[in-house]
Amino acid sequence: MARVTADISVSLDGFVTGPDDSPAVPLGHDGERLHRWIYNLSTWRARVGLDGGEASRDAEILEEGFATVGAHVIGRRMYDHGEKPWGDEPPFHLPVFVVTHESRPVLRRSGGTRFEFVTGGVAAAVSQALIAAGGRDVSVLGGASVLRQCLRAGLLDEVTLHVVPVLMGDGQRLFDRVSGGPRELPVTRVEHSDEVVHLKLDPKAVSPPR
Amino acid sequence: MARVTADISVSLDGFVTGPDDSPAVPLGHDGERLHRWIYNLSTWRARVGLDGGEASRDAEILEEGFATVGAHVIGRRMYDHGEKPWGDEPPFHLPVFVVTHESRPVLRRSGGTRFEFVTGGVAAAVSQALIAAGGRDVSVLGGASVLRQCLRAGLLDEVTLHVVPVLMGDGQRLFDRVSGGPRELPVTRVEHSDEVVHLKLDPKAVSPPR
Repeated sequence: MARVTADISVSLDGFVTGPDDSPAVPLGHDGERLHRWIYNLSTWRARVGLDGGEASRDAEILEEGFATVGAHVIGRRMYDHGEKPWGDEPPFHLPVFVVTHESRPVLRRSGGTRFEFVTGGVAAAVSQALIAAGGRDVSVLGGASVLRQCLRAGLLDEVTLHVVPVLMGDGQRLFDRVSGGPRELPVTRVEHSDEVVHLKLDPKAVSPPR
Repeated sequence: MARVTADISVSLDGFVTGPDDSPAVPLGHDGERLHRWIYNLSTWRARVGLDGGEASRDAEILEEGFATVGAHVIGRRMYDHGEKPWGDEPPFHLPVFVVTHESRPVLRRSGGTRFEFVTGGVAAAVSQALIAAGGRDVSVLGGASVLRQCLRAGLLDEVTLHVVPVLMGDGQRLFDRVSGGPRELPVTRVEHSDEVVHLKLDPKAVSPPR
């Protein structure tokens, strides 16, 4: 059965961007640091049309996150900030459902990427993505707000945190303060390189009653 | 040469206590969840005078954090909140230097624990602890504020985060927002069990110039 997964890179201090992210500074100041582990991987380079790169375990793990996927879900802020850097041929090559408050027509890009704008919330976006994926998995790529909303709504089958060994100091936090007590998120797999620690988590685990 | 290490248990969302910690609720509501991985380990039980428990890899890793140590440093808040639960024979069995603003006489407890109150800040506390340790290591046990102060002051040779796979939702954060841009904290070792992911970090690594 198709699964809904989420992947996000996060600093040791819990930030998914540097400070002051904006369309002009998409990942915030020094925010590229959080994605540095990706840029030289062979599997990433292939996605953006480049040869070479490192064929490491990190490259395999990155590709795992894409291999079974038929559609993506992202937030409006991530879309706004990514639109320019992704250019005319975005690295997705799949339908991408953007969770937004503002209705917009579908936007088709080269290489198979198609942005669809969903105003009905994260559950609607995930549903539409599952249909578009036609039996393949749906991958939620962030930002933090959409990932949190999907997690709270019980929409995710797996979350992978790519923990980057750096203190960013400031930026968008992956996790907000919320009420309601502890929620278990068991670790199902841990792998690491010098660049990043991959934590695979099971959000379907049931927290014991309090 | 004697090293200065720090160990702290932290949730996936970056909290070292549950919400509303106080002397009456020392770790905050549900905060014991963050230390659950410790309580049944053979090495922990031996420290608190009990037989049995699990002789697992977690038990060995916990003991590593104590085996070479000659003195501890803790914060005043941790002291205030721990005083009652630790009881007449605290689990340290060593001199413990408490970073505080209030001068107090030395407090001796059974089993070799001696609390000394240091009003000169974290660097003074670490210096006094190094002297008391007589060539053995100094271990900083928290809370979050003292750990952050030691990290910023460049006093630590190793930091171990024991990441507990739970979202606490609220509590004391391990890391605050700070300015000054990214700080590298390379991972030197990763081990994990079902209960906890141990991340050993090298705070002496030099961040590249910005």
